[in-house]
This record gives sequence, structure tokens and C-alpha cells, in this order.
Amino acid sequence: MKTDIEIAQAASMLPIHEIADRLGILPEELEPYGRYKAKLSESVYARLADRPDGRLVLVTAINPTPAGEGKTTTTVGLGQAMKKIGKNAIIALREPSLGPVFGIKGGAAGGGYSQVVPMEDINLHFTGDMHAITAANNLLCAVLDNHLQQGNDLGVDPRRILVRRCMDMNDRALRSVVVGLGGKVNGVPREDGFMITVASEVMAILCLAANLTDLKKRLGDILVAYTYSNTPVYARDLRVNGAMAALLKDALKPNLVQTLENTPALMHGGPFANIAHGCNSVRATRLALKLADYTITEAGFGSDLGAEKFMDIKCRYAGLSPSAVVLVATVRALKYNGGVPKAETGVPNPDALKRGLVNLAAHVENMQKFGVPVVVAINRFAADSDEELAILADYCKQAGCRFALSEVFAKGGEGGMELARAVVEACEDPSDFHPLYDTALPIKEKIEAIASRIYGAAAVSYSAAAEKMIREIEALGKADLPICVAKTQYSLSDDPAKLGRPQGFTVNVKEIRLSAGAGFIVALTGDIMTMPGLPKAPAAYQIDVDADGHISGLF
Amino acid sequence: MKTDIEIAQAASMLPIHEIADRLGILPEELEPYGRYKAKLSESVYARLADRPDGRLVLVTAINPTPAGEGKTTTTVGLGQAMKKIGKNAIIALREPSLGPVFGIKGGAAGGGYSQVVPMEDINLHFTGDMHAITAANNLLCAVLDNHLQQGNDLGVDPRRILVRRCMDMNDRALRSVVVGLGGKVNGVPREDGFMITVASEVMAILCLAANLTDLKKRLGDILVAYTYSNTPVYARDLRVNGAMAALLKDALKPNLVQTLENTPALMHGGPFANIAHGCNSVRATRLALKLADYTITEAGFGSDLGAEKFMDIKCRYAGLSPSAVVLVATVRALKYNGGVPKAETGVPNPDALKRGLVNLAAHVENMQKFGVPVVVAINRFAADSDEELAILADYCKQAGCRFALSEVFAKGGEGGMELARAVVEACEDPSDFHPLYDTALPIKEKIEAIASRIYGAAAVSYSAAAEKMIREIEALGKADLPICVAKTQYSLSDDPAKLGRPQGFTVNVKEIRLSAGAGFIVALTGDIMTMPGLPKAPAAYQIDVDADGHISGLF
Repeated sequence: MKTDIEIAQAASMLPIHEIADRLGILPEELEPYGRYKAKLSESVYARLADRPDGRLVLVTAINPTPAGEGKTTTTVGLGQAMKKIGKNAIIALREPSLGPVFGIKGGAAGGGYSQVVPMEDINLHFTGDMHAITAANNLLCAVLDNHLQQGNDLGVDPRRILVRRCMDMNDRALRSVVVGLGGKVNGVPREDGFMITVASEVMAILCLAANLTDLKKRLGDILVAYTYSNTPVYARDLRVNGAMAALLKDALKPNLVQTLENTPALMHGGPFANIAHGCNSVRATRLALKLADYTITEAGFGSDLGAEKFMDIKCRYAGLSPSAVVLVATVRALKYNGGVPKAETGVPNPDALKRGLVNLAAHVENMQKFGVPVVVAINRFAADSDEELAILADYCKQAGCRFALSEVFAKGGEGGMELARAVVEACEDPSDFHPLYDTALPIKEKIEAIASRIYGAAAVSYSAAAEKMIREIEALGKADLPICVAKTQYSLSDDPAKLGRPQGFTVNVKEIRLSAGAGFIVALTGDIMTMPGLPKAPAAYQIDVDADGHISGLF
Repeated sequence: MKTDIEIAQAASMLPIHEIADRLGILPEELEPYGRYKAKLSESVYARLADRPDGRLVLVTAINPTPAGEGKTTTTVGLGQAMKKIGKNAIIALREPSLGPVFGIKGGAAGGGYSQVVPMEDINLHFTGDMHAITAANNLLCAVLDNHLQQGNDLGVDPRRILVRRCMDMNDRALRSVVVGLGGKVNGVPREDGFMITVASEVMAILCLAANLTDLKKRLGDILVAYTYSNTPVYARDLRVNGAMAALLKDALKPNLVQTLENTPALMHGGPFANIAHGCNSVRATRLALKLADYTITEAGFGSDLGAEKFMDIKCRYAGLSPSAVVLVATVRALKYNGGVPKAETGVPNPDALKRGLVNLAAHVENMQKFGVPVVVAINRFAADSDEELAILADYCKQAGCRFALSEVFAKGGEGGMELARAVVEACEDPSDFHPLYDTALPIKEKIEAIASRIYGAAAVSYSAAAEKMIREIEALGKADLPICVAKTQYSLSDDPAKLGRPQGFTVNVKEIRLSAGAGFIVALTGDIMTMPGLPKAPAAYQIDVDADGHISGLF
């Protein structure tokens, strides 16, 4: 089998204006970036405003395991498969961060014969959105530190600064730093730290903003610090949200690319699914719904994190109503949940599969709680036994959800036709989408709704700092925002070691943060890493470019 | 008079493919970025390899003063004027950094009716080159710190790390920092600091690289640190130059834009003119020479910094031979050099002008030392008196250089026709271009050649640290590189307060650095700022974007 990059480089891409033309996008609405990428102009929104929306299909997954699930690959493959069964579909994905590309994970544009291309460009800079977000965030921080330096008229307490600089890089040495050293002309010394760009509130804001005006307002709403007299300081108090929005004016436009089979894909925005809401931009999803009959989108990590936030944050803010949820799992990953070590997940083991099935069941039930029909998609491997697959099919029948095998990694759209048919049928099933909780509830009740109904927790505990911040948020009049739980993705609980479907556990809320610009309250459980590190042998060692500009070593 | 951004936004831009078409660039050689910007593909170089080069004209200036000279405006206006007199010209400029845009200086795309457009895009992200350079530089630093963290097999001494992270931002709080705090999993604590991106060696390398292969080699040659046993560590020892080159593969392609009068302009690369060589990329200049009969380019700061390095570093490495030098001055700036305070430079004062003329004379003589014909261009203001202008014309006659008035700020190309004719004539004058010194000379002799022949210094002194580094560079076998002096731009000497043409001074070399990848030895005199700060009221306060994406407040 060829590597992902070999397959991607052998792709028959169409010029991006042809992809746009097939979508009915006018030439003047297309802003090309090279031959195979483009941004879509603001004017397309007004022209299509009255067109009815297509169906929205969310692809999510069980809790990630080292055995791998293939969620993005399934999303891309499903998009390709829709054309094979005669349906008109578009894909809406997050765009990748450079950090993982040079770290351990590799690229984030699907895999095998279900990839979005041009793979190298998408993984390296793409249309510059990440860099624009980095610049906007860091301008805010530079202006804030400059305010301290130039007299601190607002009385900002340097010990209570809430925003951090960011970099689109895995760089652990920047997690905890001291800035402003070197004497009077070189700033005010204080403790600081960098996040990776995708963890920044600016990224979350870009992905939730309805338009430029809304973007600028939300940027102004970022809570950046408190003063010595405990008054909140917002970005707008620093007079910097206009310049930040100017830096983001092109980044706010969705990016159009294509899959290996020329299915159109909007890749736009990519917030973390722990500290933020983990979905591509509202603007890309809204536009996709106008451009095709079926929009296939995904959310980060498992359904407990990404999908819950998709429903409760993104859909709520954007007025979206998903028609179906595709829940991706693999036989291997379910056996891993059933207690089998990763190395042995390729060996048939129906008993382990049955034990691990509880994880899938939790995710199915969770998605059904939002009133949306569920399709379980098993990303099939050659080693999966008929007996194992039959166990899964039986379970789905009992659970009242559809079931389909998918082989899109090896076969592209052709391998996803069964899944595509199941999805089309599910979209016609009765649906009654509703968020999980009412935002008017007190903060703790909202957190507890997610913890008990989605995670299966018996209780929620709060640290003293979290209790204090809840009171502060209430005092600021921001308590009616939705909740964004930052939790390990590896377990339904807040303990990554608890596989399967843990019971009777307590979720420990250690910290509460207010993302007032993005419009959610972050509840942190455990130590959430917002700046990854590089492994001993980073992927960067393998990445190279030859004299003709061909890139190798991306995966 | 309208503001620069108002003029720029009212421009009648042609679609970039039309600009390219007029230059004979094939459609498949054009990689558009939006409607009015493009990169030029690698393939254009091979196709045009055998075409004879056009004439190369360098625009430089006297020492910068607060009164302003208008070098970039003159460069753009001259390019526009060439068309007015029936000549086929292209402009080759540096691309701006975001730092000054949000700080104090504003944009860097010319002014008045001599601007490169789209002005907002060029000043905000452009085609992403700065961000790619930032990412490549910071990947190197992340991999280096990760090497320390993961066992430090090479034995790198954390106290002797020579590369710094960078950010394309004016952010003084990052000048001096401590990274790697927070315990064992968060890196190895050490002193560090950020540069602005344009001060990075990666930027200098991008601008001097002949092609991707050369780029990768030069990136590998970056001296990043010494080991505990005093062995040099290069970027290639960290196995990261391939990935850095991959990040830079598109950034290495020149950017095509246009002026207000649709004159083509290649804007590509923008290294500082103190710590680096201060010119646009070799690749852009080389390509420009193939595309038009006249290439108008500029170098940073005054001729003592930018032009000297253009001749001795860029032209030497690239095998370029300039046909003429345009030396830009204003009557105001010369009066400022003659001792008049800035506020009074608008008042006619022939005596002060005569006193300040020595600064112009030094620059004229310096440029003549390279064997290239000189045209003095006086960027004319309404308050300049006839008597003052006659003094300048007389001086030029005696000095054996051509002279022309320019009004390109107010009148565009129409205001530069006299200058354009003078330049065309100068290009036909006898010319015998040669660098100032032989690189085979010892390091000190090269520094002294620049100090005595260009700056007019009586002597050069070296700190103990500089002496030590000279010996180290000799031991590394790198002594035969050209010299890049980092010196104040405000004086011919290393003391910014010494205006006019200082005599009998000593240049104090405080530090020597090896930019082994870029291929030069940096001699630092005085405190050279590599990370600017924001002023009390940064330009960012004024910058805004409206609901339709129109940007205001850029200047």
C-alpha cells in the first residue's frame, strides 16, 4: 500500500475554479490561493441567503484509543461516497495545526484513499488562517504588555493576566516562561506562558463568529485581565479589537479544497476540542448547507467532547439542526476498550469486543439524547472477523440505530457506499434536535447535566478556585453561557485510564475559565495541555523537500 | 490631499493575471493569492534562463532623518515613471513586516501616488512569507529545546545557544525571557529572547538562496549553539533543515503585485538592514532582470548600510552588476543634517543646506567607489526654494553625478519623468562595478575597509568578546565570508547623534556573530535592537475593519 502522501501526490486534482463552478460559486466569489485552494468571498453569503439549507450530518467517534478510529478519514470517505450513490455532498472540516504535523500525529486531512488535497499545502500553512490567528492573539498580548510598560492607566494587575501568547508549534519550553526581563526599557517582568494557536480563544471566536461585525464584537469581549481593584479588563478596553479583526478579515473567509475524488470540502478553523469547542467554523458550515444537499462535518475527539459541544455550543449559536450523527468505531478500538492491549487488537476476540461495546453504547445513547438519528460506522480492517462484525450489527439493531461497514481508507468513496446509503436513510428518519441543557440554568447545573447525562458521572466536585470563579462569572453577568468542558478525550470520565463505560465516578472541576468572547464557560477537569511537546524523534526529522518542491515525510 | 490608504483603495488595479500576461509570464507559471497578488512558480526560472538580463538600478538614500527622505516612494515612482518615458520596467522591493504596521511606522509600500497595491493586503500577511519564516525559525528553536529535553545527545550547552525564537510583532516584553520553567516535563530552563522575524537569519537566508537546494543547505549551515566541549552545532546536526525548507517552499517564490499605475512589482523578502543585509530576495531580483529592461530595486536605511551590503553581499553572491545608483535625499533632510531642528526644516535656509550637503557628498562618493554611475534624486517639497535646489544641482555637477528632481509622491509616475530620463542615461554611462573588498582578506581588514572607506572612520576598536569570536570564526574556517555591519542608520558613524559627515571617529565593534547559513559575519557596533517595542499609543489603536472588510487606519 502506498503512503498517504504518495496517494495524495498522485491525485487528479481539478483546478479549484472548476470545483467552485460545480458548486455554483461565481468567479467573482472565488479568491484563489494557488491553483488548488481558494477562499470564498463575503458576497456569496448574501447571494445564497434565501436558498434552503441542505442536510447536516455530524461525524463523531467513540473515545480515541491508540488502536485508531479513522474519524476524519470516514468523514472524507463518506463525502466521496455520497457522489457514488448519486447525492450531492460537501465536506466541512477543521484545518490542521502545524504543531502535530512536526510532532507525532502527522497531518490531519484524512488518510488512504479518503483524503483532502493538496495534502502538503493543507498541512503546511494552507491559506494562512492559523498564522493570522496567531498574529491577532499575539497583538493583543503585545498591546497588553505595552499597556503595563507605558504607565498602566487601567491598573492591570500583572499577576492576573488571563490571555497568553500563542504559537502554532509543539514547543514545551514555552509552556511556562517569564517575560519582560532585562530592565526598565524591556517591559514589566511577569509570569507567562504560550498556548498552541488552536487552543486560543481567538481561534474559538473565529469559528463561532457570524460575520466580521460579530467577530469584532467577540474579540472585544475577550476577558484579558483583572485590575488591582478587581475590575475586569476586556480586549476592547485596550482598543485593539479593531486591529485584531483587520488581521482576521481574510481568515474569516472559508477555504475551499477538494478530496481525492474531487468532492468539494470547506476546511476552516480548528479549535481544540478540550479547552474550546472542537468544530470547524460556523461560517463554513452555514455556507456548506447552502451549497449542497448534504454537508458532512466532524467534531474533535469522541462524542463526549466534540459532538456534545457541536450540539450545545455550535448548533445553539448558529441555529443549526443536524439531521444525523455518524458514530465511528473500529473493532480494534472496541477490543482495546474491552481490555486488550494495543498489540493484540488485530486478533479476533469476540469476548473482548463484547466487553468494549459498552463504550460504543454510551456514545450511541448520548447522541440519541440530542434527538438525532445515529448511524454506527465501523471502519473495517482486514483482521475483523465476521463474528465480531455480527456482534456489532446485532447491538445496533437493539439500540435502534443504523449500522454500516466502511472501507473508505482502502477504497475511497467506493468503500463508503453502504455508509452513505445508511446516512441518507437516517436523514429521513424522524428527528427532534435539541440541546442537552438550557443555558439559563445555573453554571453548576449545566456542568452537572453534561457530567451525569453524557459522561455517566455520579457526582461533580469543584475546587475552591473553581467555586470562586463561578461566583465571579455570576457577578460579571455571564453565567448564562453554554459550558465547554476540558476533559481527557481517552475516557468518558475525567481519568484517562478508565476505559469502557465507567460508573460511579466523580468529575473533578479544578478550574473555571471564562471565554467571554467565544461565548462559553470552560470547566477544566484534570491537567489539560494547551501547549503540546515534541517527542524524542519528532516527525520533523522525516520531513523534507526536494529541488522541485516535492515534499516527503508528511503522513 | 487624501491619505495613503484612501489613494490606495481608490486604485484601478488590474487582475494580477493581466499584469503577469504583460510581463510574458505564462498562466501555468502564476499562482494567484486572491485577485491582486500572485506567486511565480519555479518553472519560470528555467524557461527564462537564457534570456539576457535587463539593467539593474539600485535606489538608496542619505542617512535617514526625522524629516523623511521617501526612498520607497521614489523607488515606486521611478518604476511608474519609466513607463511614462516609454521604457519597460519592473520594481523589486522588500515586503513589509507586521511589527511596524501596528507600531509607529505604518506600512511599507510607498506613499501618496507612488504606492504598491493592494496596500492593506501587502501590509497585513501578504502571501504569508513572514509567517512561514517565523514558523521555520521557531521549528528550529523548538527542536533545539526538545533536544535538550530529550537527553541532549549532542551535549548542547544551554548557556551557549545562538538562535532565538522570533515573532512578526513589536513586542518588547519578549526581548529577554526565561523559557523552560515549570518542572521536568516542561523543558530545560534557560535564558532566551525573541527577535522580530525580519531580524532572523532564516529571513536573510531566504533572501540570499539561489533555489530550494541552496536554501536547504544554508538552513543546515545555521550555527545554532556550542556544546559543553566547545564544538559548533549546526541546524543540520538537529536534522531539521529539511522540514524548515519544506515550510519555506512557497515563501521562496517571489510575489507579484502592481503599483497604482499598474507597473509590475516583485515584493519578496525583507531582512533588517542592520543585523542582516537589507535587500529583497536574490530570486526576485534575478527574475525581475529577466522580465523587464529595467529593474528598480532598493536597499534598507542609508547607502552606508543598505547599499554597501547590496553591493558587497547580495550582488557578490548573486553575480549581479548594478548599472546605476539613485541616491534619494530631501532638502529638508539635508538641512536637518546641517543642524536645523526638524520643525524648521520647511523654512528656506541655504546655509544650513550647504552645511548638511556633506552627508549627501559622502554617500555620492561612497557609491562611486563601487564603480557605478550615481543619480541624485531630490524628493521635492513645495517649501524647497529655487536657491536651495540650485545649490544641489551645482554640487552634483562638481561631483560628477547626475541630478533630478522628483515629485512622485504628489504626482505619481508623471512626477518622476525627469528622474527616469536621468536614470536611463546613467545606465548608458561607463560602469565598472566591483565590490569594496576581497572576501579572502582577514576579518578585521574587511571590517576596516568598510569603516574607513564608507563610514569615514579613523579607526576600529574591538571588544574582547569580538576578538574572541573572530578567532572562533577563523577556527571554524568561516573567515572568508563578507561582512554585515550592524550600525545605527542615523549617522555615518556608530553614534546616532553625529550628523553630517563625521570625521576622526572610531567604530567600536562590540560583538561579532556568525550567520553561517546566510553567509556573512555580523559586526555589531552599539546596541542593535532586534525586537522593537510599541509606542505609548500604537498604530494598532487606529486600525479597524468594517462589516464589508474595508480596512481603515493603515498609513
